Amino acid sequence: MRIDIITVLPELLRSPFEASILKRAIDKGLVEVHLHNLRDYSTNKHKNVDDYQFGGGAGMVMMIEPIDACISKLKSEREYDEVIYMTPDGETLNQGMANRMSLLKNIIILCGHYKGVDQRVRDHFITKEISIGDFVLSGGELAAAVVADSIIRLIPGVLSNETSALTDSFQDNLLSPPIYTRPAEYKGWKVPDVLLSGNFANIDKWREEKAFEHTKNRRPDLLE
Amino acid sequence: MRIDIITVLPELLRSPFEASILKRAIDKGLVEVHLHNLRDYSTNKHKNVDDYQFGGGAGMVMMIEPIDACISKLKSEREYDEVIYMTPDGETLNQGMANRMSLLKNIIILCGHYKGVDQRVRDHFITKEISIGDFVLSGGELAAAVVADSIIRLIPGVLSNETSALTDSFQDNLLSPPIYTRPAEYKGWKVPDVLLSGNFANIDKWREEKAFEHTKNRRPDLLE
Repeated sequence: MRIDIITVLPELLRSPFEASILKRAIDKGLVEVHLHNLRDYSTNKHKNVDDYQFGGGAGMVMMIEPIDACISKLKSEREYDEVIYMTPDGETLNQGMANRMSLLKNIIILCGHYKGVDQRVRDHFITKEISIGDFVLSGGELAAAVVADSIIRLIPGVLSNETSALTDSFQDNLLSPPIYTRPAEYKGWKVPDVLLSGNFANIDKWREEKAFEHTKNRRPDLLE
Repeated sequence: MRIDIITVLPELLRSPFEASILKRAIDKGLVEVHLHNLRDYSTNKHKNVDDYQFGGGAGMVMMIEPIDACISKLKSEREYDEVIYMTPDGETLNQGMANRMSLLKNIIILCGHYKGVDQRVRDHFITKEISIGDFVLSGGELAAAVVADSIIRLIPGVLSNETSALTDSFQDNLLSPPIYTRPAEYKGWKVPDVLLSGNFANIDKWREEKAFEHTKNRRPDLLE
């Protein structure tokens, strides 16, 4: 899989892709992540990529021309399955979307910044608009990193233990049951006896019950 | 405001806080962000912070002892309003929560990693569990950065133009109307005439209508 991220702040995105699971996935050749600095596609001498809003109002708007130039260059080099724009009013990311996107070959992710992009970019170049939730960030960069992380960890071979991803929250519409590790007692707080029993049938039953109970308490909407 | 982030991967979080708006907020002294490497609080010689699950199963669990040591040290130094744990089964972040948290003085954010933390950490040390959405990430680090970003940009003085944050999506339960910038025509795609008219009463009316229409199409739930 190849992910091209277009941003005015490539430096913000550096460390998330240079650490941990994402770095290992890149090092293993399971995914390529390319960061593109939108300023490199600016045609004016000040390297501007944003300008005032037509009609007045606070906040700058990302111009269409540099974005067109960058997307067009990438598209001339290979086919893309999706050109994604990160925006608070996009479709809300969920695990099903991450699963489906993890099967794609090439995607572009455009990070919004300032007030957002010129509407004509959305109308003519974007194939999918994604939000990570009902909150506003200072830019789409962290949101793009979140989308990339949620997808990349699902690519076969990325997680060292693949069964681990299958038992995550949301993969079966249930939240995870409580988990414990050593010591069995800490400051008087004990691990539930059943987990120390060695009776795996009982343990499975306990985990199922707890996952259901936890989901019912916290997120009854997932059980509908 | 002071934000202490406890993580096994402080290096992953470096660049988001060294760029753009978050860096400026830190440089201006409007917020302090401290990253704490959980391994520094490990008591065993291998600097382990995770161990196998009691009862078996894939994935490692973060141990209670180093987390207790780190949180206790921080709490001995100052009062904290919240000790937050980032987890997919927490309360889903929204703009209202970000607004409320931006008024707090000191918060701790614990990033989950591997399968998550020993349940006793959640039962005895955590005061608030937050999720950024119904998807799984390789760790809580990006989620913590998202929470920090959503909060920090709301602190007075952080955004250069404060009216900008007030017109963001979600602040009034409406998505933003379309925005445009120069050129007025690009490849035959034109900016709506009203925005070029100079008639601000008409522009305001058009924006209100478009915001309402866009919200009705994309997110009718916000209008209920």
